[in-house]
Amino acid sequence: MKGQARVVIENVKPSVDGGKFFVKKIVGQTLKVTFDFFVDGHDVISGRLLYRRENAKKWIAAPIHFLGNDAWEASFLLEKQGFYEYTLEGWVDYALNWQHGLQKKHRDGQHVQVELKDGVQYLEQIKSKAKAAEKKYINQLIKLFQDEKTYDKAVEEALSTKLEGLLHQYPAKKFAVRYDQNLKVWVDRKKANFSAWYEFFPRSASQTPGQHGTFADCERLLPRVAEMGFDTLYFPPIHPIGEVNRKGRNNSTTAKKGEPGSPWGIGSKHGGHKAVHPELGTMADYERLIKKAKKLGIEVAMDFALQCAPDHPYVKDHPEWFVWRSDGTVQYAENPPKKYQDILPIHFECDDWENLWQELLSIALFWIEKGVQVFRVDNPHTKPFRFWQWFIAEIKQKHPDVLFLSEAFSRPAIMHQLAKVGFSQSYCYFNWRNTKEELTEYLTELTTSPSVDYFRPNFWPTTPDINPYILQSGHESTYLSRFFLAATLSSNYGIYGPAYEYLVHQAVPGKEEFLDSEKYECRHWDWNKSTRLKELMGLVNRIRKENDALQSTDNIQFCAIENPQILAYFKQSPDKTNNLLIVVNLDPYYKQSGWVQVPLDQLGKKEGDNLTMNDLITGVSYNWTKEWNYVELQPNLPFHLFRIS
Amino acid sequence: MKGQARVVIENVKPSVDGGKFFVKKIVGQTLKVTFDFFVDGHDVISGRLLYRRENAKKWIAAPIHFLGNDAWEASFLLEKQGFYEYTLEGWVDYALNWQHGLQKKHRDGQHVQVELKDGVQYLEQIKSKAKAAEKKYINQLIKLFQDEKTYDKAVEEALSTKLEGLLHQYPAKKFAVRYDQNLKVWVDRKKANFSAWYEFFPRSASQTPGQHGTFADCERLLPRVAEMGFDTLYFPPIHPIGEVNRKGRNNSTTAKKGEPGSPWGIGSKHGGHKAVHPELGTMADYERLIKKAKKLGIEVAMDFALQCAPDHPYVKDHPEWFVWRSDGTVQYAENPPKKYQDILPIHFECDDWENLWQELLSIALFWIEKGVQVFRVDNPHTKPFRFWQWFIAEIKQKHPDVLFLSEAFSRPAIMHQLAKVGFSQSYCYFNWRNTKEELTEYLTELTTSPSVDYFRPNFWPTTPDINPYILQSGHESTYLSRFFLAATLSSNYGIYGPAYEYLVHQAVPGKEEFLDSEKYECRHWDWNKSTRLKELMGLVNRIRKENDALQSTDNIQFCAIENPQILAYFKQSPDKTNNLLIVVNLDPYYKQSGWVQVPLDQLGKKEGDNLTMNDLITGVSYNWTKEWNYVELQPNLPFHLFRIS
Repeated sequence: MKGQARVVIENVKPSVDGGKFFVKKIVGQTLKVTFDFFVDGHDVISGRLLYRRENAKKWIAAPIHFLGNDAWEASFLLEKQGFYEYTLEGWVDYALNWQHGLQKKHRDGQHVQVELKDGVQYLEQIKSKAKAAEKKYINQLIKLFQDEKTYDKAVEEALSTKLEGLLHQYPAKKFAVRYDQNLKVWVDRKKANFSAWYEFFPRSASQTPGQHGTFADCERLLPRVAEMGFDTLYFPPIHPIGEVNRKGRNNSTTAKKGEPGSPWGIGSKHGGHKAVHPELGTMADYERLIKKAKKLGIEVAMDFALQCAPDHPYVKDHPEWFVWRSDGTVQYAENPPKKYQDILPIHFECDDWENLWQELLSIALFWIEKGVQVFRVDNPHTKPFRFWQWFIAEIKQKHPDVLFLSEAFSRPAIMHQLAKVGFSQSYCYFNWRNTKEELTEYLTELTTSPSVDYFRPNFWPTTPDINPYILQSGHESTYLSRFFLAATLSSNYGIYGPAYEYLVHQAVPGKEEFLDSEKYECRHWDWNKSTRLKELMGLVNRIRKENDALQSTDNIQFCAIENPQILAYFKQSPDKTNNLLIVVNLDPYYKQSGWVQVPLDQLGKKEGDNLTMNDLITGVSYNWTKEWNYVELQPNLPFHLFRIS
Repeated sequence: MKGQARVVIENVKPSVDGGKFFVKKIVGQTLKVTFDFFVDGHDVISGRLLYRRENAKKWIAAPIHFLGNDAWEASFLLEKQGFYEYTLEGWVDYALNWQHGLQKKHRDGQHVQVELKDGVQYLEQIKSKAKAAEKKYINQLIKLFQDEKTYDKAVEEALSTKLEGLLHQYPAKKFAVRYDQNLKVWVDRKKANFSAWYEFFPRSASQTPGQHGTFADCERLLPRVAEMGFDTLYFPPIHPIGEVNRKGRNNSTTAKKGEPGSPWGIGSKHGGHKAVHPELGTMADYERLIKKAKKLGIEVAMDFALQCAPDHPYVKDHPEWFVWRSDGTVQYAENPPKKYQDILPIHFECDDWENLWQELLSIALFWIEKGVQVFRVDNPHTKPFRFWQWFIAEIKQKHPDVLFLSEAFSRPAIMHQLAKVGFSQSYCYFNWRNTKEELTEYLTELTTSPSVDYFRPNFWPTTPDINPYILQSGHESTYLSRFFLAATLSSNYGIYGPAYEYLVHQAVPGKEEFLDSEKYECRHWDWNKSTRLKELMGLVNRIRKENDALQSTDNIQFCAIENPQILAYFKQSPDKTNNLLIVVNLDPYYKQSGWVQVPLDQLGKKEGDNLTMNDLITGVSYNWTKEWNYVELQPNLPFHLFRIS
């Protein structure tokens, strides 16, 4: 850059770790970019945002707008999936600066004949770029500016918005400065930001007690899932389960004959990660299930668990992918003193790491070929971050539709790093955020901290691994409110069923674990049983689909209400046409009431205006005319979901 | 980097704009570096900070310490002036991980014979690096670990701190990761962080009314400055003053015959930026003044004002360095509708910019040759940032002692950018921060925001350009408190005298400007007059020199006191031996009192312990034994400065 360049562009946002990682958005969203832009002295500056789809030859320009105090912003529409790049360009606009100074001097009553003549150089500059009609006009101006007899007319034209428009249109961009990075944003399909997950164990899907469930049983359950309004159906691993060191009921270290073991102990003589467990059915059954689900608007998500049972074929075929001990045995998973004898971790530091990576990639590609487009990745925080970064980039390049949910309940830095290296969604701490204060603080962190640019939380009230203390009472009101919070606080959420809607709550004493967990045995469910919770899930999922305001997480605004047992929040769609006020009673035992403040500003309303509050849960409408309004909630239906019109 | 590398190092601080600019420190300070450092899974990680003086071949390693939640820190001593580089290195420590796992299993009662044998590989690894005696010990261990008969002894040795020490000492650093940047810190001499400036106009230095002051007069005033305890004596420009378009008294556009003009209108037939104004004396006079001052512990600071009077020699010799208008005249400085006909701005965008930069650099080098080591730069925010970045770097390389004070009263982004590109100190908004709330907020911003790494504020209660409203009453109490705040809140401060200590306050009506400003005329002062303010300045400057706690700005901690007219703060030296409690009454008219909270924690004391509070201003001592203590201040001496012992 030449020493004559004077403008500075810095503090460009969004930018994840100074551009080291990409920002995440979805198709149809607008990326708003803010930055500091200034020059020494008092000259007028101009600039533009430049963006393009990755590898496109041409940059597209977007205008920039002054926000105040040297901050500016610009934005562009993300029309397609894939990577976009963006950067900024700025310069001192000598021509506009001349017009600006002329105006101030003229207003001050100064004679500006010399200034008019000074301006001719700027007119000459744009002449070469201008169209014929414009060129004619510019030639007239050049004559006018140099003729003292036409002074008044010349001043009028010099200060005209017409000339200002031309100066804007054909900037000289002398000594322009380009921001030193091309920042990147990855654009996902909409599901990355809006999804309702339902998880169940295929082996528990049978209608007949004592019988192992099959893909055919799952197929029969698809209409149930569709009716409940879920769009993503996630199964624990469907691969052959190891027979060596298989786990028994309630995680006992030895399985009795006939016990099914943990589906996460993958691989046996029946095959490894590219095979299906024989008791579930055939590959054809699984493919048919995927297709049938798709017809009902449901995507089947696969569990991607990179670990092996001791009898996984890899152990024989690729012994170098495991750690061998001095006694000739292979190292199983340990977190001393805990032992997981049914699971061998993969040795990512092995010399053969490049072939290992390729093989692991081939597993995902194999299932993508079969129709899988969503992966729930098991314990990604116990595999190297650099592996995931490469792996996800490889898949995205060929299959931009594919999404990855990170199942890492770990420390914040670890969970954030996984999101940075590319995971589309992340399990999070929702399970342990119960009080009004905790929920408010956590949602504020998720939706306003820098991580909002790359970390998309997915709220699960329970998982097969987590039976949280708050739900161990089995009290229906708590199940109602925890489900409702998950579904309305977060645009991505999931339910581990049918245990959830059937209020299954028995725990291993003193632990947040399920007793008689499906992880270690087949359970039998009465799949046809209807519960209030199940009906309400269906209703809320329909409401989510019909109300754009529930399809984002970062649009939340908490509303004041003086009762610490009531959480109230407002959600607005990007186009501001869909406005929801949501009120939840967090007390499962008592009626709670309070006065909630409606965010009239956001609604473009004022005290006294009429607001129709239509509760989409009950169908009842209320007329509110004040900023503060009385609400009251019983534990048996502990929420309002008002659409405001 | 190989795919086997697993650790992540990120969020390294301090780092100015991701390493684009350097951090600033002074000799003798310790640089504390914090960062996030983690790995997938549960393995033990190790690492080290690496640092070196710029261009040194070898890196020096410093240990790192775990802070919790994946945050770590390390530090190193900055022994010499100049640039240091620092970075980080980390790895999974497989050997320590083995010892750690062995310990947990042993505690759990597991038999660890296989683990002992597994450990032999780590012993073999360090053998090659170890010294003879260590090698012998390691060979013993290898034997021990493999012999089942010596199991108990082997376990004892395997878990010993002796072995742990060796594993730490000779890390394998397998798949080590290096942070991807070498960050930089510039180390200044101490004055950059601790200075007391005194400014006066040499032309007003004469003892004889009506006579133009000279360097000889200034020389005679040096003992006065020394007695007042100042270490830096700054003069407005001492170069020949332009005679064309010279300004008259009170900034009138025409000077009467004999009026001296503004010293910032530089250059005439007598020379330009490398000459001295004839009425002040000769170059030899100036050089003698610098030398004499140095003997008294005073450095003479030069005003570096890059602009020219219309008759500056540059205008004839380098017409390409100025803007020429269509009427053949040269462009003077304007901020429409304001006009500054006595000043021509330099055209930094000119084609000859490289020669221009070299010439401007040569000015500074010329005066450095004459003994100047401190420059106060006039209006740096109206010259390009890239110029300053280059210019300061060039000087630093050859003359690391040289310091630059940025005189930019501009917007925050502009002032920060100047500090980022290299200015050692910066004028700041202290002039307009008057109330307890304003002062608390501003000091908190200056000492805790990211700018603390590069922006060193310098507090001036007044300047020739700024006669703030709060001081226009001329009330002595306000002059006392504003001086005292500047000198104790900030380790760098300055006084524009003798106007300040003589309570000169007459303003241009309605403006924060001095009436009959010395900028446009010679004033006559009774330099021998003694005032209470002058005496107190001397005392406070002596106290500053004797109390390390007053030699930093970022060590401030505000203390609770319920009176909004009283500001109380605690300052502690880095070694914690010097502890000061400072209390200031901001009300110039009334006595104020309150109960101030002593930060017992920082003092390592508890309620009931004896504290001797020695007021260094009055010499009176108090015994305090409580956390909350009564203080009372009259407007005539509106501050306490307690040394706590």
